[in-house]
Amino acid sequence: MSQEVTIVRNVLEANDRLAEELKKKFTVRKILCLNLMSSPGAGKTTLLERTLTDLKDEFKMAVIEGDLQTDNDAQRVAATGAQAVQINTEGGCHLDSGQVLDALKALDLEGLDILFVENVGNLVCPAEFDVGEDYKVTLLSVAEGDDKPEKYPLMFHISAVMLLNKVDLMPYVDFDLDKAKGHATKLNKDIEVFPISARSGENMDTWYKWLREKRAEKL
Amino acid sequence: MSQEVTIVRNVLEANDRLAEELKKKFTVRKILCLNLMSSPGAGKTTLLERTLTDLKDEFKMAVIEGDLQTDNDAQRVAATGAQAVQINTEGGCHLDSGQVLDALKALDLEGLDILFVENVGNLVCPAEFDVGEDYKVTLLSVAEGDDKPEKYPLMFHISAVMLLNKVDLMPYVDFDLDKAKGHATKLNKDIEVFPISARSGENMDTWYKWLREKRAEKL
Repeated sequence: MSQEVTIVRNVLEANDRLAEELKKKFTVRKILCLNLMSSPGAGKTTLLERTLTDLKDEFKMAVIEGDLQTDNDAQRVAATGAQAVQINTEGGCHLDSGQVLDALKALDLEGLDILFVENVGNLVCPAEFDVGEDYKVTLLSVAEGDDKPEKYPLMFHISAVMLLNKVDLMPYVDFDLDKAKGHATKLNKDIEVFPISARSGENMDTWYKWLREKRAEKL
Repeated sequence: MSQEVTIVRNVLEANDRLAEELKKKFTVRKILCLNLMSSPGAGKTTLLERTLTDLKDEFKMAVIEGDLQTDNDAQRVAATGAQAVQINTEGGCHLDSGQVLDALKALDLEGLDILFVENVGNLVCPAEFDVGEDYKVTLLSVAEGDDKPEKYPLMFHISAVMLLNKVDLMPYVDFDLDKAKGHATKLNKDIEVFPISARSGENMDTWYKWLREKRAEKL
């Protein structure tokens, strides 16, 4: 095995050990943790803004924001009243469990129901690094095209949910919903597909129903 | 310096050496080489389809396509009549110079004017790996939001051109063109910004004018 391959393996193994630590913390505290992933600009922060606002009387929620630079997203999320911590990766292309463990220190976990980890916008690298989540949730904007599951297979293979976001743009783009769904289901027969618009609010109930079910399963 | 940091440095240095080899090849043959980068689904392949078609009588052009999986993009490009070679990175998040050197063997370089390297859809990792290009060209779809230059600064810092693609969607999204341009120019005062729609053909002339100028400078 080359030195390079050994190093990569060691990095992944170290991450998996810390992910197990995180999982134990979340289990003890009955916190549902979701790892939100997508291409840049698919609408992760808009999804969070609406979800945190619509469900604020139902759940205590917090967000860990991952970005190369800026704390814009943490500010947008904090404006809803939810707790938010920003991680700046300074060029790093994904979050890892060590960063999430550090960020947790800045959050009040008492009574927390749901923790969202908004990963760096990237449809490739974040797929390889667990951050202690119960489920991976991937957003695909319909403006990106229906071939993305086929072209970025690992991400959709490991995700429990594919949120087809920005369906309000459907009349103006070439996107075949059945084709996207077909590709994703071929990679992962159990994937749940919810066409939504986080901007207009369309179909958000399908996503909220899933959140409620998964949160209930943690109790 | 940690073992991990040393390995990363060695990988980047090895890539830079091969990038120099590529640059020499392109200089000798007077080929303009452009490294096309963007998020997944920003429209790189659609840009190429239209460019290859519109300029087919003016230039001899070829494309190296980078994708994790599938040869869909190479097929789309080849349908225009241009030469196309597909590189599958099998999960790799960017192209490197070694892969491009290999792919060149499958191309007839005789009389070639312009070589496009369509990188893996990723706004982070490809920024660190030169592939012997004269210029880096980054597409940003207006559906992704005007904050992307600020949030993914390295990519826009090192690009000669930002193509603001899908301007046909402007009436349906919240995208402030001046804001996006302002962020990009702050990172790179020389960046050229062309708002276009590769799908509708709007403003493609601004991009073709730039291509003609840069190709002429290689002669």
